[in-house]
Amino acid sequence: MADVRMQESTCSVSRSLGVLGEKWTLLIIRDALVGITRFADFRQSLGVAADVLSDRLTTLVEFGVMTRTPYQEPGSRIRHEYHLTDAGRALHVVVGALQQWGDAHLPWSDGPSIERRARRTGRPVHVAFIDDLGYEVPADDVDTIQTDVYPQ
Amino acid sequence: MADVRMQESTCSVSRSLGVLGEKWTLLIIRDALVGITRFADFRQSLGVAADVLSDRLTTLVEFGVMTRTPYQEPGSRIRHEYHLTDAGRALHVVVGALQQWGDAHLPWSDGPSIERRARRTGRPVHVAFIDDLGYEVPADDVDTIQTDVYPQ
Repeated sequence: MADVRMQESTCSVSRSLGVLGEKWTLLIIRDALVGITRFADFRQSLGVAADVLSDRLTTLVEFGVMTRTPYQEPGSRIRHEYHLTDAGRALHVVVGALQQWGDAHLPWSDGPSIERRARRTGRPVHVAFIDDLGYEVPADDVDTIQTDVYPQ
Repeated sequence: MADVRMQESTCSVSRSLGVLGEKWTLLIIRDALVGITRFADFRQSLGVAADVLSDRLTTLVEFGVMTRTPYQEPGSRIRHEYHLTDAGRALHVVVGALQQWGDAHLPWSDGPSIERRARRTGRPVHVAFIDDLGYEVPADDVDTIQTDVYPQ
């Protein structure tokens, strides 16, 4: 179950985690970003119980992160495919940021299992803060400013 | 408890979530990034049970994301402050990415509760993929490439 209390926070980090913060959910998104669509394939990739996977996928569909579409193979019953929506694909940068942090701060002995590169140029990419002129801003130089909406 | 199985994955997204994916953990990081250091202040901000908060902070200290330092106010018993390490501060971009996604896809009726700006210039910043020449790359143009370490 997604967390209703967190979903109703004025803080968008809380709201995001209210939908995405359950265990497995961001790993489902990771798998969907590399093209997994079928329940059995998510299950095999994650090694997660069917009822947990079903619950997480239902939440993601409910909140517009994925769509659920029926399909039927000859001689089989109707099954469902799960595809990321635009909102779901926008999580690429969240997953990329988690990957980058893990590679830097929880490194695997043999090195990273995946790399991210720009499709057109093949150049390696990283996740960073960028200002509205397109210049990268070091994270330590980014200030957090409370708006009028911030709880007093 | 952090998730040992996820921590021992070749995938750095799994490893990151093995440490950070428990409920409340990324909200503790969010609070620490705006300067909260004391147990009671985290507890008040999050409204979380003391044993859960203590468990999450212990995991973050164990994995080098925060440090735990004793302090004592006159007439009080010794308490502890929690400060982000360099590895912890590097999570700013993860929290920023989650905030950005929530503002875009789970918007609050009155607008964002916080904004991020470059300290020196005051210009608004966002989180994005950027290549090694400093150019922003749209997330849809970022390819995920499996290395030799990727499980076959």
